Amino acid sequence: MRAVESTYIYKAFLLRSNMKKVAVLLFDNFETLDVFGPVEIFGILKEDYEVSFYSQNGGMVKNGHGVSMLSEKPDGIRNGVDIFLIPGGWGTRPEVNNPVLIDLIREVSLASKYVLTVCTGTALLARTGLLDGKRATSNKRAFDWVMTQGPKVDWIRKARWVVDGRFYTSSGVSAGMDMVLGFLEDCHGKAFAQDAAHKIEYNWNRDKEEDNFYTA
Amino acid sequence: MRAVESTYIYKAFLLRSNMKKVAVLLFDNFETLDVFGPVEIFGILKEDYEVSFYSQNGGMVKNGHGVSMLSEKPDGIRNGVDIFLIPGGWGTRPEVNNPVLIDLIREVSLASKYVLTVCTGTALLARTGLLDGKRATSNKRAFDWVMTQGPKVDWIRKARWVVDGRFYTSSGVSAGMDMVLGFLEDCHGKAFAQDAAHKIEYNWNRDKEEDNFYTA
Repeated sequence: MRAVESTYIYKAFLLRSNMKKVAVLLFDNFETLDVFGPVEIFGILKEDYEVSFYSQNGGMVKNGHGVSMLSEKPDGIRNGVDIFLIPGGWGTRPEVNNPVLIDLIREVSLASKYVLTVCTGTALLARTGLLDGKRATSNKRAFDWVMTQGPKVDWIRKARWVVDGRFYTSSGVSAGMDMVLGFLEDCHGKAFAQDAAHKIEYNWNRDKEEDNFYTA
Repeated sequence: MRAVESTYIYKAFLLRSNMKKVAVLLFDNFETLDVFGPVEIFGILKEDYEVSFYSQNGGMVKNGHGVSMLSEKPDGIRNGVDIFLIPGGWGTRPEVNNPVLIDLIREVSLASKYVLTVCTGTALLARTGLLDGKRATSNKRAFDWVMTQGPKVDWIRKARWVVDGRFYTSSGVSAGMDMVLGFLEDCHGKAFAQDAAHKIEYNWNRDKEEDNFYTA
């Protein structure tokens, strides 16, 4: 009986220690799918990932699509998380000039294992200086504006997503889901990522160089 | 001056009268992307669609992906809306046996112009009896269970989505986005829907008969 119990305790410990924390940054007028596409994918992988939402001051965060989401204060993530996810959206336009948020993003990004940005979320990360000298991408329609937020970044226009070390940056909106599946492939292998896509009946754009929205 | 003013008033009136109301039903443990994929698409079409969220009792609704969303009480939609969207998710398992919610779904669906279901959301609509004798689909992994919720429905296993009159039903999770784009094509034409997909850099599975997740 004691042996059985200790086996269960050991399993519970293993499960817990393998659980990776995904912290999603929210701000007013974030883009809906930039957040919830990736959240769907990490969300179904309950044995490996745990998702939480944070904003500069905690509380309700709203966007122009009628979404009102509850978020936590960021104190719990200042020492870093496994995956820090930064979405884009119209809200990034004022937020690139919000030094409190940019400092928070720098602090959490420096301490985290991986930083993933979707769409114009790359502009927020670029403002921290952490992408300087690194390869990155962003959404097509705002690309020129995003570039001005990080003049020292090596911007890649044609890419579904770009990986540079622990930084993953994606093209516009829907590309965030393809990037997260790509991230899962890098961490867990192809079969794991394909299984996740299959569970949500998602047609995965698996090749990060295949960008159907690029026009020369 | 008077002429200019009245022109503006007329335009504002036209804009308002063309605005279509999308009501999204929420319940605990709804599937994240079932809701927010369609919401992203309707959300970017600000001149035509306005999205709001409702639940049986209003207030905060949560799911297993860490999402806590604010919703309104359903009094305002009992007389119907332009588009009533019903998501799926694990929450549908208990909710098919919740007569208050099923009665609400029947009432709103009867009064609304179009009813769209995603994934196992079709099970909730099937329980109202409104799909009896109609063609409908649902997600692959829960198909057998969903069928038991509507024995008189003409269930179509191989379909990205199915249209029967004013009822649109989609396959699993991600298929909801393809269906909403298909709905937009039916209402506004192909160019309009393709433009919406392009804005969010989405690889649209445009053919509703093309179902990459069906296995015979």
